[in-house]
Amino acid sequence: MTQHTSPLDTVLSALSPIFGDRLSTERAIRDQHTAVESWLTPAAPDAVVMARSTDEVAAVLKLCHAHGVPVVPFGAGSSMEGQVNAPHGGICLDLSPMDKVLSVNAEDMDCTVQCGVIRQRLNEDLRASGLFFPVDLGAHATLGGMAATRASGTTTVRYGSMRELVLGLTVVLPDGRVIKTGGRARKSSAGYDLTHLFVGAEGTLGVITELTLRLAGIPEASSTLMCSFDDIGAATAAVVTALQFGLCLNRIELADAVQMAAINAYGKSDLPEAPTLWIELAGSGSTVAHDSEVLRDLIRDAGATGMEHASDPEAASALWRIRHSALYASRALRPGIKGLSTDVCVPVSALPACIEGIGKVVETTSLKAPLIGHVGDGNFHMVLLFDPENPEETAEGRRVNAALIELALSLGGTSTGEHGVGLGKKAYMEAEHGTALDLMRQLKRCIDPANIMNPGKIFDL
Amino acid sequence: MTQHTSPLDTVLSALSPIFGDRLSTERAIRDQHTAVESWLTPAAPDAVVMARSTDEVAAVLKLCHAHGVPVVPFGAGSSMEGQVNAPHGGICLDLSPMDKVLSVNAEDMDCTVQCGVIRQRLNEDLRASGLFFPVDLGAHATLGGMAATRASGTTTVRYGSMRELVLGLTVVLPDGRVIKTGGRARKSSAGYDLTHLFVGAEGTLGVITELTLRLAGIPEASSTLMCSFDDIGAATAAVVTALQFGLCLNRIELADAVQMAAINAYGKSDLPEAPTLWIELAGSGSTVAHDSEVLRDLIRDAGATGMEHASDPEAASALWRIRHSALYASRALRPGIKGLSTDVCVPVSALPACIEGIGKVVETTSLKAPLIGHVGDGNFHMVLLFDPENPEETAEGRRVNAALIELALSLGGTSTGEHGVGLGKKAYMEAEHGTALDLMRQLKRCIDPANIMNPGKIFDL
Repeated sequence: MTQHTSPLDTVLSALSPIFGDRLSTERAIRDQHTAVESWLTPAAPDAVVMARSTDEVAAVLKLCHAHGVPVVPFGAGSSMEGQVNAPHGGICLDLSPMDKVLSVNAEDMDCTVQCGVIRQRLNEDLRASGLFFPVDLGAHATLGGMAATRASGTTTVRYGSMRELVLGLTVVLPDGRVIKTGGRARKSSAGYDLTHLFVGAEGTLGVITELTLRLAGIPEASSTLMCSFDDIGAATAAVVTALQFGLCLNRIELADAVQMAAINAYGKSDLPEAPTLWIELAGSGSTVAHDSEVLRDLIRDAGATGMEHASDPEAASALWRIRHSALYASRALRPGIKGLSTDVCVPVSALPACIEGIGKVVETTSLKAPLIGHVGDGNFHMVLLFDPENPEETAEGRRVNAALIELALSLGGTSTGEHGVGLGKKAYMEAEHGTALDLMRQLKRCIDPANIMNPGKIFDL
Repeated sequence: MTQHTSPLDTVLSALSPIFGDRLSTERAIRDQHTAVESWLTPAAPDAVVMARSTDEVAAVLKLCHAHGVPVVPFGAGSSMEGQVNAPHGGICLDLSPMDKVLSVNAEDMDCTVQCGVIRQRLNEDLRASGLFFPVDLGAHATLGGMAATRASGTTTVRYGSMRELVLGLTVVLPDGRVIKTGGRARKSSAGYDLTHLFVGAEGTLGVITELTLRLAGIPEASSTLMCSFDDIGAATAAVVTALQFGLCLNRIELADAVQMAAINAYGKSDLPEAPTLWIELAGSGSTVAHDSEVLRDLIRDAGATGMEHASDPEAASALWRIRHSALYASRALRPGIKGLSTDVCVPVSALPACIEGIGKVVETTSLKAPLIGHVGDGNFHMVLLFDPENPEETAEGRRVNAALIELALSLGGTSTGEHGVGLGKKAYMEAEHGTALDLMRQLKRCIDPANIMNPGKIFDL
């Protein structure tokens, strides 16, 4: 009799008494737990389990490890490269119920949270403390998911990404063992850096269930400059100089002319349709005032052709609203199309060559590809607007994406600055890492010999 | 005949034609390649090989891997916990000939160096660029060694440690494969973070032969405040406030009353023999001027009983010379005794409890134990002055060290902030890491199955 029971059924039977109605195999629930934000085709898991604690996660992994059933960790489902798809079926482990802020240590400027806490929620909780968590990506993402994809955002130029801001983790290993990595000390030389092994592993080595994070003080003052340039090279040169001056830079964002045209069309505005920078300074009132003057001089010398400066919060918000409308403006160029968002990151000095080079490739296609980027880090996104149902367009989109990654790698950059690899960028890992990819596979086999953790992501075995 | 040849002899015979007189088995050479800066008993290797290139390192490792011969990487030999001792014999791989600065990219504020470059040398090379590499430990260490021990220094409160400042590595794996990790992009989400796996691994997973490092702009201005407090708690509280204000803090150092008395005795000065802070601000002239005023108010409110302020470089240097005399002043309390330098790091808010707690333990001994620390990071050192030839004193020293580590761990801290584990702190890894130590061992066995790389360091297998 029992030989007809599949490993999945065995696991689900064992989990059912523990999870009750937090375990579901309903089609609608399973479909919600796919990569809906991605350009890739959704692939649903066989079942969804809602976990409330590290112990519950450990129970699921132990069983799945014993029976070889895939486990796909799921936070808010906002990842962009199919990280939460389940191409090999198995169990989606939905961690959104683990949404407690466990402790805030204002004196030490750190906090410990469960993995399912949404970034925006944490910052609401922190407001009274005068502190905030500074990784600000666009999506409503969970902090566990942000760690798993090594996420960053517009303020990374100042505060760093998840790589710099995660101090420690609680991780459930594939076989159900629970470990703690790092800790609350600001630095440590005590053995291997396990924290960074799991940050960016996209759930392929275990499940992050708790995170200790560095916080920052909310700056006293800020000011924003928005300006346009004749060409991207001049804009980038201005950024390089500003970075070298050690100004209190908080955000440095860039849009190209195509993006600005899209923003105008979307917002019915008449902004210059030219490469545009948004630069935010933040710090004490006097520092911001001083650095704003230096920055304005420097931007003027760099050939800025238009300049708007906002030092009061409302005027600054208006400038940033323009920046934040970029994604919607891009998608509005082709309603109904999500677009593939590229994500290369290169040394800042290589940005002009990279952007110019890929522009020439885009010109050989029928695609619209507005560009927006975190130029202080050398990271930019082009939204490649193609219809996944149209094979020719899809081929063009994939060709541009591949050409861009190849170009970025040749300039000393990386295929992905902040979105991760998932399913969408696996094909480029060999070119990016060479022999180091073998070591990644070796580590995967060592930590997850049954290959249950998010199988098929980052690389194939 | 050949069955009498030891694996070591086989390896040395094969290496001899490649390395010529850069391979030595002379006693004097071998004795120079031990942990002379450590409180531990030196243990010499069987042979010393001077490597000039990544390829030569690969050749050595491949042979040693095939024959099971231990390899101990060696930079400047300045590590403090016996990292360069060879308790299992084998080959010391001296990397000091790999001392080339390979490239400096001023626009991107990064550089790539060979592992044997001494930190001070790099900064001399960089001077004309207006940039510097900001990890400033006391010793003349190599950058490879600093990465291997995850070193930090007085400016870590601002710039981070080797953990934050290494962008990428060339590593020779134990079997001789050469990999590149990370790269020149400021951030990346492309797969596992191999860079951080080798930073802090103390040469137990492979040999770092090249490093790509983040640089910083030399600040336009700086100023230094030196002040004393009635008690350490008040000094620490002042530091916590200063950190939360987001001032342009560059260094925050603390000495206790015992240390100040030692400094007075050594320098024939009459500084207050009370807990003392040195705080350096750095940035643009106007920011430093503004923040200096805020800092002075804040320090005064915190109950500082003495305050010296220096804004011109010479006067500031004089204040920092006092700080930098601490180690020599400590050793002068017992000439001929090096002392065991403790290295715990705790959340900053826990510093008063930690320092007070260990003070009570020291009082139960005959030892002098002056304290100096990087208080902005929560890291401090006590130089435990005992004579290693005297068993009772040694027992007291070890007891204080163990009590301090136990206390730091109970306060959410780490046994070592910047010196690493080596041989000296292995005994504490189980208490610090728990189950995570098993994962470290698993990784070691995975990457170095023959256990040739710096065997017996960090943990036993």
